[in-house]
Amino acid sequence: MHMNQDTKGNKDMGQFLYFFSKEVTDGSAGMKAELGGKGANLAEMSSLGVPVPPGFTLSTGLCKSFYANSEILAESVKSEIKTGIENIGKNVGKSFNDANNPLLVSVRSGAPVSMPGMMDTILNLGLNDVTVVGLAEKSGNPRFAYDSYRRFIQMYANVVMGLNHSMLEVYMEDLKSDRGYKSDTEITVDELKSLIERYKAEVVQATGKRFPEDPWDQLWGAIEAVFKSWNNSRAITYRELNGINADIGTAVNVQAMVFGNLGDTSATGVAFTRDPSNGNKIFYGEYLQNAQGEDVVAGIRTPQPIRKVEEKSGQTSLESLMPSAYGELESIYKKLESHYKDMQDLEFTIEDGRLWMLQTRNGKRTAKAALKIALDMLEEGLIDEKEVVRRIDPASLDQLLHPTLDPKAQKTLVAKGLPASPGGVCGKVVFSSEEAVLLKAKGEKTILVRPETSPEDIEGMVAAEGVLTTRGGMTSHAAVVARGMGKCCIAGCEQLSVDLKKEELRSDGFVISKHEFITLDGSTGEVFLGEVPTKEPELGGDFDKVMAIADKYRRMGVRTNADNPKDSQTARRFGAEGIGLCRTEHMFFGGERIDAVREMILSEDRGERRDALAKLLPYQKEDFVGIFKEMSGFPVTIRLLDPPLHEFLPHTDAEIADLAKKINIDEKKLHQRVDNLKEFNPMLGHRGCRLGITYPEIYEMQVKAIGEAASEVVSDGDKVDVEIMIPLIATAGELKRLRRLSEATIEPYQETCGEGLAVKIGTMIELPRAALTADEVAEYADFFSFGTNDLTQTTLGLSRDDSSRFLSTYVADGLFDWDPFVSIDRKGVGKLVSIGVELGRSQKPGLKVGVCGEHGGDPSSIEFLESIGMDYVSCSPYRVPIARLAAARASLDSQAK
Amino acid sequence: MHMNQDTKGNKDMGQFLYFFSKEVTDGSAGMKAELGGKGANLAEMSSLGVPVPPGFTLSTGLCKSFYANSEILAESVKSEIKTGIENIGKNVGKSFNDANNPLLVSVRSGAPVSMPGMMDTILNLGLNDVTVVGLAEKSGNPRFAYDSYRRFIQMYANVVMGLNHSMLEVYMEDLKSDRGYKSDTEITVDELKSLIERYKAEVVQATGKRFPEDPWDQLWGAIEAVFKSWNNSRAITYRELNGINADIGTAVNVQAMVFGNLGDTSATGVAFTRDPSNGNKIFYGEYLQNAQGEDVVAGIRTPQPIRKVEEKSGQTSLESLMPSAYGELESIYKKLESHYKDMQDLEFTIEDGRLWMLQTRNGKRTAKAALKIALDMLEEGLIDEKEVVRRIDPASLDQLLHPTLDPKAQKTLVAKGLPASPGGVCGKVVFSSEEAVLLKAKGEKTILVRPETSPEDIEGMVAAEGVLTTRGGMTSHAAVVARGMGKCCIAGCEQLSVDLKKEELRSDGFVISKHEFITLDGSTGEVFLGEVPTKEPELGGDFDKVMAIADKYRRMGVRTNADNPKDSQTARRFGAEGIGLCRTEHMFFGGERIDAVREMILSEDRGERRDALAKLLPYQKEDFVGIFKEMSGFPVTIRLLDPPLHEFLPHTDAEIADLAKKINIDEKKLHQRVDNLKEFNPMLGHRGCRLGITYPEIYEMQVKAIGEAASEVVSDGDKVDVEIMIPLIATAGELKRLRRLSEATIEPYQETCGEGLAVKIGTMIELPRAALTADEVAEYADFFSFGTNDLTQTTLGLSRDDSSRFLSTYVADGLFDWDPFVSIDRKGVGKLVSIGVELGRSQKPGLKVGVCGEHGGDPSSIEFLESIGMDYVSCSPYRVPIARLAAARASLDSQAK
Repeated sequence: MHMNQDTKGNKDMGQFLYFFSKEVTDGSAGMKAELGGKGANLAEMSSLGVPVPPGFTLSTGLCKSFYANSEILAESVKSEIKTGIENIGKNVGKSFNDANNPLLVSVRSGAPVSMPGMMDTILNLGLNDVTVVGLAEKSGNPRFAYDSYRRFIQMYANVVMGLNHSMLEVYMEDLKSDRGYKSDTEITVDELKSLIERYKAEVVQATGKRFPEDPWDQLWGAIEAVFKSWNNSRAITYRELNGINADIGTAVNVQAMVFGNLGDTSATGVAFTRDPSNGNKIFYGEYLQNAQGEDVVAGIRTPQPIRKVEEKSGQTSLESLMPSAYGELESIYKKLESHYKDMQDLEFTIEDGRLWMLQTRNGKRTAKAALKIALDMLEEGLIDEKEVVRRIDPASLDQLLHPTLDPKAQKTLVAKGLPASPGGVCGKVVFSSEEAVLLKAKGEKTILVRPETSPEDIEGMVAAEGVLTTRGGMTSHAAVVARGMGKCCIAGCEQLSVDLKKEELRSDGFVISKHEFITLDGSTGEVFLGEVPTKEPELGGDFDKVMAIADKYRRMGVRTNADNPKDSQTARRFGAEGIGLCRTEHMFFGGERIDAVREMILSEDRGERRDALAKLLPYQKEDFVGIFKEMSGFPVTIRLLDPPLHEFLPHTDAEIADLAKKINIDEKKLHQRVDNLKEFNPMLGHRGCRLGITYPEIYEMQVKAIGEAASEVVSDGDKVDVEIMIPLIATAGELKRLRRLSEATIEPYQETCGEGLAVKIGTMIELPRAALTADEVAEYADFFSFGTNDLTQTTLGLSRDDSSRFLSTYVADGLFDWDPFVSIDRKGVGKLVSIGVELGRSQKPGLKVGVCGEHGGDPSSIEFLESIGMDYVSCSPYRVPIARLAAARASLDSQAK
Repeated sequence: MHMNQDTKGNKDMGQFLYFFSKEVTDGSAGMKAELGGKGANLAEMSSLGVPVPPGFTLSTGLCKSFYANSEILAESVKSEIKTGIENIGKNVGKSFNDANNPLLVSVRSGAPVSMPGMMDTILNLGLNDVTVVGLAEKSGNPRFAYDSYRRFIQMYANVVMGLNHSMLEVYMEDLKSDRGYKSDTEITVDELKSLIERYKAEVVQATGKRFPEDPWDQLWGAIEAVFKSWNNSRAITYRELNGINADIGTAVNVQAMVFGNLGDTSATGVAFTRDPSNGNKIFYGEYLQNAQGEDVVAGIRTPQPIRKVEEKSGQTSLESLMPSAYGELESIYKKLESHYKDMQDLEFTIEDGRLWMLQTRNGKRTAKAALKIALDMLEEGLIDEKEVVRRIDPASLDQLLHPTLDPKAQKTLVAKGLPASPGGVCGKVVFSSEEAVLLKAKGEKTILVRPETSPEDIEGMVAAEGVLTTRGGMTSHAAVVARGMGKCCIAGCEQLSVDLKKEELRSDGFVISKHEFITLDGSTGEVFLGEVPTKEPELGGDFDKVMAIADKYRRMGVRTNADNPKDSQTARRFGAEGIGLCRTEHMFFGGERIDAVREMILSEDRGERRDALAKLLPYQKEDFVGIFKEMSGFPVTIRLLDPPLHEFLPHTDAEIADLAKKINIDEKKLHQRVDNLKEFNPMLGHRGCRLGITYPEIYEMQVKAIGEAASEVVSDGDKVDVEIMIPLIATAGELKRLRRLSEATIEPYQETCGEGLAVKIGTMIELPRAALTADEVAEYADFFSFGTNDLTQTTLGLSRDDSSRFLSTYVADGLFDWDPFVSIDRKGVGKLVSIGVELGRSQKPGLKVGVCGEHGGDPSSIEFLESIGMDYVSCSPYRVPIARLAAARASLDSQAK
């Protein structure tokens, strides 16, 4: 028992029953703490004069008293509840236990925060052997009445009396199989009656108690069950996992039942106040005459349109059929939309000509509709610009930026992996980069399938339409690189296995051979057989308008991670204000470059190494020229070489033999060198600035290439704003030394270029030590860029390449609130980032700080980064719009605080 | 120029010349900042009335003025220095430029901190074509006089006038080869005279200036050269690397030369006030009649004993030869020892019957001597107990705890690696664990040689005398495990290469085959050919007495890292107060255990896994029983399984085939499982508590084994104090869950054992995130043990297995102050530990915190850990005494602050 014991009994309680009806409503939307979310919204609608079936909410305060009072409802409480029920009855002209016109109610839990795991709903409370007859007559549908009764008993016996769900269900299954029925609806009224008897007998058998016939007894049982469900083990676990305070308690909602299936003057339906698929300002909905709510959803009968203009031949709209109820519905939807200032998703029931609203909530919509609705409402004066920014979920923009699978197409699901990079693509399965390149040259589309990709696969990834890996997580090599390219990728699809020898992709029940077609949905992680049709993205005026509004309210800059002119161009198109991370190692692969790189690595001495590097310089220069031109004048942060050298060497015996022949070196010697460079934990090995310290000539060449590229671009009349970034700094001394090297190397070019070339030298903060000593590091840094990918790996001791095996369990079990490679771990990694920013600025006030990890494109992380005063975020080109919007929202949120 | 510009010229300077002589001494030992270390000590000796050749020190203040005055000595300064020289002359009855009895001086630099890289010494300044004649006559040794002159010119031309050293030396080499001389001493006086002329001509040739004949010019040049050497590039580099402030400047010492080779009434010698090899309280030293200081060291003539009692046949002691000078020496050594309160290392010269002390300093000594001297001085009332503790270098105790190589033995050095674990051992080279075990069984001694060891080599490491690896650093697997066992180990010996196929060990010039003998010196990292004789360690009363004194002043507890009863016993003998880290995975290797472990890993489901674990339980229990008994009543911290499971599986095709057959499993399937478990970065992979989360049954079995072992030991009447430690916690939630599991599992045993069994449950803090969220983690922890090995790896992003390639460069270049795996990195790792302690205790005041990384046995780290309030350290058994002493010193130091 986690309840406070400070409320003894109910004697000194204040109000605990809050009535809602057209006439009298005690609560409002602002009282969620007392009434729970559901209760507060029912009260709000009632206050607005919207017809809601009347009822009352028992407060969370009563829940606390209930626990303080040994989990018993006090008589004084019961007496007040009785009055409440009588008031409901008066309101609807029915009463409890009335044989002709019985009052039936629903009993629902409703905590201040959404709490799956608690008791949810009991419907049709008030039915017994007497009132069921009245309901049958009143509805003219005995089958409905007895089936409702059966369901009520089954539900009540389970959630209130504790019977296992299957204990009663088995009788119905037996009956169906005895009779050869396929559907529940084939069961006759008489059969239902005898089922009900069996149920009741079983209840006695199992619990030693009779099923309560008295509606009051039913009610006390249901209310107590809701309160008790607050402390059942599932609810406790859920609260623990989600950090919900156990003391807040739950409310109980008791509400009159209404029926849309009481004859031809009854109906039920759903509606949206605007079109949820495109946002057009039309009232849109469907209904069924003489039906229950679930019939509309179940699709047994075809629903009819609500509005007359939508009638097709043979259809009857609600507007035509019940013009008065329709008129009322129309005025209600307008009232609700302008009250909630958002598109509403409505449920309604018409009982015997009378309209009842059962629910209103903000309606789900596509990203396209979200943009249009927000802009329309801005124009209508319903909301202001800030609200437009708040109204659109940044993550939803992803839908607009990539081709998607046609939702209406037939699909055969093969397996599901991690949705690593969105988009819908199809192509022929290939198992090697070479083949992807080969087929691309022939104009064919491919999907590159690998257990995991490595830097050697870059060309193949460029050539393929999409990438599918069976290992690795959301931030594995494949995922990160593909996202950077805006290329569709499904990673860690462990249901599949790759047989590289036989060139087959296998899963339970499927064997897919080389060159067979598959389709990937990178937004869901689903792999489909064959070619599924796709739809191209439509970016329109609404998108640009919303982005322009967002930019007005954004404080943080948004840059992109791009390693080549093409990505730079894409990112600029999406509004990137520069490059926050240009990884130079990606430029080292491909054709003749990789040979020179390998020559450099295998050099025996500094002289040989310099010769090999001299061959690389023109390539690097060429890349930088292209990027500088695309980014004309915007800052470009270039990270000097980062990965361990062995990543550039071949690994298999055959590849080593090939290379030895190609570069004319002894095969054994090459083998030995490859072996020597192997590392147990490459992530923590000889990489980053450690390469620059041991082989200064590598960094020297890279800085020279930057200088030469800048000179060329500047002499063409353009401006260059370059930021040289030293990776993996652990100590200030490393940066001091490499800063000196970089300064000395770039100086001559600065003299030539004059004001056309601006140079800053800074560092990535991606090791805990760098963050913890950021004051010392800042002395030699013009800027910090937090590499939160690596910082997450080291702070949590978690390899992103290896953790996929247990990370999903960790997230599912609540050991992590979320995947820390997707959204920044605020308490650990975030704390270090915040320490780093603070210490850095203590040494150098106004130090420019940014983030260039995957988190730079994640809305939740962006919210955090805004709160600690980050200057900019950098993300892959296709996430730039998301980051712009998220940064604007974060800025507004932080102003609101 | 780094000097402050705040002192303009010399006008407003205070005192800058500090004279020292028997009669007048301006300075003292406390004035190191003004006089430098050397000057302050010369002044101190003079003050004590000890005869020191008179002289003066020019202050560091003058150095600052010198730089402020455009690097020129002001005339006023020169004038004061002239007076100083005249005073020296009066004091010794000689004068500058005196043709019959010339004053010669030495000029030496001397900064407040030791500063290699600066100009050191110029001797015999004052010699010229005139005075050299006088010196020749006075000494009766023209060869000595002219050779001194030649050396003076050579030295002066080099350090003052900037000639390359070899420019003059070449003339002497030519002369020797012309004449066919083998030694410098064969050169005649006339040849020396013509060499001197050649030298002077070359000086004119090279510099355009004549070599200064005037002693005053010589002096100004020398003094300016010393001051200028403060800012030469080597000195600047040294200061930067060692963080020495450039503003402190250097002093200059000018001192009269004295000569022990002016005839039979002259002599020179060295002495120790006590025996430096065993600490016995005897005055001990050697001298040579009519000789220079360097002759004693050079060993051209055999030195004679100082004291009469040490005379052997044919020897004449100083006591016999010059009783008066000896008597004075005796009273001086006593005075110096009681003044400095420590054993002194003396240098003296007798010039024409007159005793001069040239140096006194605290004498180097063996660890054995250090213990005896400290205890004797305690008894003599010279020092107190605290000083005894301060006096002994904890690291030196290592000498006493391991067998060492006989220092007198002939040795052939093969290669040098890292001194990973001390001791001197020899044995036959073997290349596999199996062979080590096999030969051990035959009673033969072996050295296990591997590229790197893995957990599978444990049995071989146990069987071998010592371990030699060609890869890995000071905290590689081999190093850590060997240190834990107190076994000699040389790691990362990269000059050697292992050819496992040919079973050969190769280096430049050596090929050592299997079963040849080699000898390892684990204290120096040297590998020798053949069998070098060794000496057994002698632990005596002095050792125990010093330890008992240290324990009086120690605040922190000292525990040991031990995984078996034998190590536990050793550690208890060395004074360990419990086990701080018992690694359970080491128990998983060997014979049938490893088979059961592999069965467990390869299980298809939880049921199979439980069956395999049930087979392991008795082994684990047995180990724990043995350890609990050895540690009777002392706390035993047991870490649950930590390494990734793939460490227990075979890796080569042949081994996999073997295992498949053995445990009757499909070979392909086994291959696949092994492949599936492979990790890119195992250090950051599926290990530690992550295993306990995904396979709770493993931890459950281990806790059960603890419970059963405790029950058995308690029922025998003993007490058990066990601390269950969960490794690699990143979030409080992990600990919460595994604490619950452990509690539930151990509870029944606690009930049975009653007060005989105390159980605590805590965690290792070895990830940055755990330290940063230690307040949350502490909620579920009875104790913290900081795993500073792993914390160093993650905080610095530095794999200990891979970093050996560049770590030595980093330390040599000053990028790290020291190897962070040996001594804790205070600014990074230390800061995190300190944050962890603080946050942990903020949640749980008085939370017990300890350290169980390698740093727990390192004196410098222990000093830091004392300062942040650590409760205990834990280290390998052979480092326990070192830790006890270091902890006592740290405690005294922190009280002194």
